[in-house]
Amino acid sequence: MSDKHIITFLSDFGTQDGYAGSVKGVIKSIYPRSEIIDITHEIKPFDIRSAAFTLLNYYRQYPGGTVHLAVVDPGVGGERKPVIVRTAHYYFVGPDNGIFQYLLAREAYTLYAINAEKLPPSPESFTFHARDIFGPTAALLAGGTHPEDIGQRIDNTTQIISGIRHKSDSLYEVDCISVDRFGNIISAFSRIDMERLKGQSVKNIRVKNRTLPSLKKYYSQVKKGELLALWNSQDFLEVAVCQGSAVDKLDFDAQKDHLEIELEKAKA
Amino acid sequence: MSDKHIITFLSDFGTQDGYAGSVKGVIKSIYPRSEIIDITHEIKPFDIRSAAFTLLNYYRQYPGGTVHLAVVDPGVGGERKPVIVRTAHYYFVGPDNGIFQYLLAREAYTLYAINAEKLPPSPESFTFHARDIFGPTAALLAGGTHPEDIGQRIDNTTQIISGIRHKSDSLYEVDCISVDRFGNIISAFSRIDMERLKGQSVKNIRVKNRTLPSLKKYYSQVKKGELLALWNSQDFLEVAVCQGSAVDKLDFDAQKDHLEIELEKAKA
Amino acid sequence: MSDKHIITFLSDFGTQDGYAGSVKGVIKSIYPRSEIIDITHEIKPFDIRSAAFTLLNYYRQYPGGTVHLAVVDPGVGGERKPVIVRTAHYYFVGPDNGIFQYLLAREAYTLYAINAEKLPPSPESFTFHARDIFGPTAALLAGGTHPEDIGQRIDNTTQIISGIRHKSDSLYEVDCISVDRFGNIISAFSRIDMERLKGQSVKNIRVKNRTLPSLKKYYSQVKKGELLALWNSQDFLEVAVCQGSAVDKLDFDAQKDHLEIELEKAKA
Repeated sequence: MSDKHIITFLSDFGTQDGYAGSVKGVIKSIYPRSEIIDITHEIKPFDIRSAAFTLLNYYRQYPGGTVHLAVVDPGVGGERKPVIVRTAHYYFVGPDNGIFQYLLAREAYTLYAINAEKLPPSPESFTFHARDIFGPTAALLAGGTHPEDIGQRIDNTTQIISGIRHKSDSLYEVDCISVDRFGNIISAFSRIDMERLKGQSVKNIRVKNRTLPSLKKYYSQVKKGELLALWNSQDFLEVAVCQGSAVDKLDFDAQKDHLEIELEKAKA
Repeated sequence: MSDKHIITFLSDFGTQDGYAGSVKGVIKSIYPRSEIIDITHEIKPFDIRSAAFTLLNYYRQYPGGTVHLAVVDPGVGGERKPVIVRTAHYYFVGPDNGIFQYLLAREAYTLYAINAEKLPPSPESFTFHARDIFGPTAALLAGGTHPEDIGQRIDNTTQIISGIRHKSDSLYEVDCISVDRFGNIISAFSRIDMERLKGQSVKNIRVKNRTLPSLKKYYSQVKKGELLALWNSQDFLEVAVCQGSAVDKLDFDAQKDHLEIELEKAKA
Repeated sequence: MSDKHIITFLSDFGTQDGYAGSVKGVIKSIYPRSEIIDITHEIKPFDIRSAAFTLLNYYRQYPGGTVHLAVVDPGVGGERKPVIVRTAHYYFVGPDNGIFQYLLAREAYTLYAINAEKLPPSPESFTFHARDIFGPTAALLAGGTHPEDIGQRIDNTTQIISGIRHKSDSLYEVDCISVDRFGNIISAFSRIDMERLKGQSVKNIRVKNRTLPSLKKYYSQVKKGELLALWNSQDFLEVAVCQGSAVDKLDFDAQKDHLEIELEKAKA
């Protein structure tokens, strides 16, 4: 085993301003043995849902004990609490604004509200929570501080990123939460949502005047260039094109366009 | 304390060409115990002022002994000297073209011109100063080499990035040196410039046919969506919009548009 | 010497999706003492030739023993083999699709096809070769595993990225393989190709209705703003503008436009 402790870092800061760099400096100052691994700083500004989904793509691959720092924070300084999420293998540090929602639906966890007064005081004149609260918290956890020493347990999280709207009996309107590099359209509707709607299953998916009649299991179940819908590797409903881009084929605008999901009684 | 020595790295190289990667390889070859932390390689090509401002946002957060490597170098191979700046806590390595100007106005320092003949010879056929001079210098300093062993003290720096032009008695035309991710317009005019103009204070700021009558202390002193001007956290005069983008609201072009600052006798 | 082993990482994944981050997590889980250095994740999607060229710009600068992980893989899961390239000083890990072609033309090497069954099994439900094959292979090699323990020697590589077409006796049509940050046009034609055409030399280069009559040795052999052609630092034929951008001056489209190279009998 290495004697270093890993802190991964995801944000929407970009790198040009040096703010992500300042957070890394604070971490190294508080806990020099930490090893910081950049995931990305190119999350679209304030796109909490995209960050929440991206987090699922990497956190499980890291060694036990890793601290995952994830900061996309449109409400910085407002009501949302800075939190620590503790799971069996990892810590997560960030704002309680939904960024950990998909994660929390998949893991058993304990939740702590960070008490900023327990952190090292910042000498800076203005407040930048990533540098003054989230970064120091991640550094302390990586160095062995127990969450109870810098926060108190809380029960509930803020879940504000649903993106699923009930339209009628069997019809749901669903947002796109992410478009990946290949042009796949990832919807906010997951198998976990499906399971909550007991006894129902997906009848069809409509997107941009196209109706996809059933879910496939693999991309290769349709011909090259054809549309399909499937549960993706993170269990979200995804619209894709075999060896192509669904966004391009459908001229899909992730900000304006939605998917419609029609359910039916599950066949026994 | 860790037994590693940190070298931060800022440049305008981008990452696609592999040049930033080659500099990191040279550093690890010369001083394997160094820990390289990328700040950014996405400074706009040749934008010295933006780099000079970005540097202020992160250097102080790093542990004492950190070497800050910063290379934006339009005049590579020309007259400007490769230099080392030594402050109480840090080394800085880069071209003497103004990239350290804002820093030097804020810190006591000693300055050294790098003597390339004292560096390990490069086996490469063409000259790339970041790889052959700046990177090796940073690696040697991180490893404990004294600046006098690879350079000689010099007195003056090249200050070429003012961006402040005296138009008439009380009127100054000022460039935008940076637009941050939030659309804030950061001007070249700082509190340090203000202090040099003894006995005067800011009467108003004009930008794109708008006149901002006074400086605020906080963004929240105006309503959401309204313009304001203030000294920002790095003591530069900044034009911002409360919870919005000043660049968008003003249709401001950082290359072409300027700010005008009118001064008046300071009230006693 | 450091007790860490370096793995450099180049890909076309971008960073936003977290996939590059997941590969780094797998590497740290398998071999915690490894030190991962990001080269770039911004190679244009599926642009094997650009990646092959970029690799030349950094691999030699790294300490002996470095493992260079390079994944641009349009045919993921198809016929191309996952391979290890072993040279005197380095390992290279990636798909055998041409990404190592320029490297292999410049180094003595041994080639191994990776046997995925010898790697730690992935717990994931879908296959992502960078995470499940290339990353683990790089981690194992960095940790001291011998290539013969996880692969078998093979003789031939797939060379599919020529970009040089023989048009007539002395005329060759050549693709652009990369445009660097300065707007230099790098062609697929290298000194190695020239040497294969024994007894011939370049008579002239034509690009966008311009004819460049001879090769220069340095950019500064023409006036500022003028076009020139030369063998660049990696021995590829390059079209450049002294202190300017050849792409801009010629309105050159790297996807559609080509260069024409006319040869003549070499003067003795």
